[in-house]
Amino acid sequence: MPDKHLHTPGPLTTSETVKRAMLRDLGSRDSEFIHIVQDIRHRLLDLAGVADLAHACTAILMQGSGTFAVESVISSVMPPDKQLLVIINGAYGRRIAHIAKTYKIPTVELIYPENERPNLDELSARLYKNPDIYMVACVHCETTTGILNPITEIGQVVKSAEKRYFIDAMSSFGAIPFDWIATGVDFMVSSANKCIEGVPGFGFILADIEALLASEGYARTVSLDVLAQYRGLEADGQFRFTPPTHALLAFHQALLEIEAEGGVAGRGARYTENHRIITEGMAQMGFEAYINPVYQSNIITTYRYPNHPNFDFAQFYAGLNQRGFVIYPGKLTTEPCFRIGNIGRLYPDDMRALLLAVGSVLEELEIVLK
Amino acid sequence: MPDKHLHTPGPLTTSETVKRAMLRDLGSRDSEFIHIVQDIRHRLLDLAGVADLAHACTAILMQGSGTFAVESVISSVMPPDKQLLVIINGAYGRRIAHIAKTYKIPTVELIYPENERPNLDELSARLYKNPDIYMVACVHCETTTGILNPITEIGQVVKSAEKRYFIDAMSSFGAIPFDWIATGVDFMVSSANKCIEGVPGFGFILADIEALLASEGYARTVSLDVLAQYRGLEADGQFRFTPPTHALLAFHQALLEIEAEGGVAGRGARYTENHRIITEGMAQMGFEAYINPVYQSNIITTYRYPNHPNFDFAQFYAGLNQRGFVIYPGKLTTEPCFRIGNIGRLYPDDMRALLLAVGSVLEELEIVLK
Repeated sequence: MPDKHLHTPGPLTTSETVKRAMLRDLGSRDSEFIHIVQDIRHRLLDLAGVADLAHACTAILMQGSGTFAVESVISSVMPPDKQLLVIINGAYGRRIAHIAKTYKIPTVELIYPENERPNLDELSARLYKNPDIYMVACVHCETTTGILNPITEIGQVVKSAEKRYFIDAMSSFGAIPFDWIATGVDFMVSSANKCIEGVPGFGFILADIEALLASEGYARTVSLDVLAQYRGLEADGQFRFTPPTHALLAFHQALLEIEAEGGVAGRGARYTENHRIITEGMAQMGFEAYINPVYQSNIITTYRYPNHPNFDFAQFYAGLNQRGFVIYPGKLTTEPCFRIGNIGRLYPDDMRALLLAVGSVLEELEIVLK
Repeated sequence: MPDKHLHTPGPLTTSETVKRAMLRDLGSRDSEFIHIVQDIRHRLLDLAGVADLAHACTAILMQGSGTFAVESVISSVMPPDKQLLVIINGAYGRRIAHIAKTYKIPTVELIYPENERPNLDELSARLYKNPDIYMVACVHCETTTGILNPITEIGQVVKSAEKRYFIDAMSSFGAIPFDWIATGVDFMVSSANKCIEGVPGFGFILADIEALLASEGYARTVSLDVLAQYRGLEADGQFRFTPPTHALLAFHQALLEIEAEGGVAGRGARYTENHRIITEGMAQMGFEAYINPVYQSNIITTYRYPNHPNFDFAQFYAGLNQRGFVIYPGKLTTEPCFRIGNIGRLYPDDMRALLLAVGSVLEELEIVLK
């Protein structure tokens, strides 16, 4: 029986070839593996459009989930007694603030409703008023809702105020293009099992080398020390601590496959088409999306629970699950909702199959929405 | 071409069936995956011989390498201002102390030569003299050398002084038996890719639940917070942050395979036989082991560089590598050495093949040692 299709934020459905790349055992200090790690780091810079800036930018791989990579940046680069400003319009912005506060890093929270984008004038005012702010953190695509934040416009405000800029691009990197230089990125994190369609096991940090080197002496942990991880990888191509060798082999294959699909543009085009089909189909059935289409990403979409007496999310979820589709519960603080992701190794026909299954479950539950 | 045999401390050579268990994509919040995680946690307690103490002991899985799991314990359970005593006779004991000092945890180091076992009278005296010591940390099998520390005897000293006890059983758990109760373990860590023969991607913590609950409020990180990870897994069977789903599927298969081999006793017997063959064969060729055989584990063995003008480690390593065998450089602070591991999915015939290759490389380098 084939695995269910994962319409989640990740782990995702991956290609058979990505999974089969894991059918090997390589030594983590063996030259073949070291070469693969170096190639992964180079291809990540290429995907970010900065392969020709390899003297100024670097890619660092970090064991653990994406959150470990986010925490590695916050805990490694913030100077003692300086402040972090976090732009929050969802759970992942809140998580960044929670991490900073756990390390007793003074944290300024700029909080917006989960269906609204941040106010740039307010950001600018806060940055100019407060010389103790060292860095601004922002989530690119808030997986909580699927809202896309304007990272380049925010970056221009951050840079004109001469602050460092950290982007959590967990669920967007590889499918939503942005201009590294125009955006003024100092640190960006993403994860193996998102738009690059690898398997989970590590995240990665793309960093401006000058900003990274400026963090000397600030690391508050050993395992999550980004600068030490960078120096280890630069010194001999090896990880300081055992890497997830199999997940890295899968990721290398996944990078070859995103390049074959046309890089960020090609991958993004498939996701956009996937997303269009789901959005139109769900709207036709009478489901209401939570986010204004203008701010909606092509990654994941949040739907309000329909206002119908027969709708019960557990039943709806189970019905789709039985039909081979895994969707995702909501995470809004304000109202009940669910989410449908459209990334991973899934194609327009898979989206149509999901819509047929949604229709079939509605019929079974005797729900007519329009 | 088959992969080389990994005679290293890990990642190791794993079985084909363990690797093939990764050819699936499961959602991390899907019921099938949740069930597998619960089963893994139960089987780990069983392997530790405490399945009937499930009310008192728990198994917690932690993303990242084994060092991440070690750091998760140190950073999560040490009360502020209390001291950690670390028994050190190798690099992994030193690493524990380094982690503690990074968190500014006052650390008492009891340091011994890398080929000697700790002095229990000295330990006892230090513990009774110092009421501020909260916990004692000790490495079971020091991968630096392969020396086996007497964790049960140490545990009896620790418990009679009424301190907490933390064992780094990274390279021993699953192949070297010990009595959990008699040893007085509060926290123990190991990793997926050691004696259980899974693939790398996470570690695990076995904990006394009372000792774990006593750490409320002490966690210094978010990702590596052991108590929060425990509560997440207990609440709904899910990880707080994306788990390495594929590595967990491989690990579940690896647990079935160690049980089929006869558990710790069966796995240990194969490793003991592997180790006997290597030790005898290397001695016959004139190589000198660094550790007294009385203290030597059946996991990994350290050899001094032979005193012969033609011996060059890089050439020796490359010669073995060309023949399909990956050995491991040394890590001693005092003298040049190399290491040969004998764990992973390797059998006595594989050890004999390695010895033939060693002989062939010596011949090529025109080295006769005896």
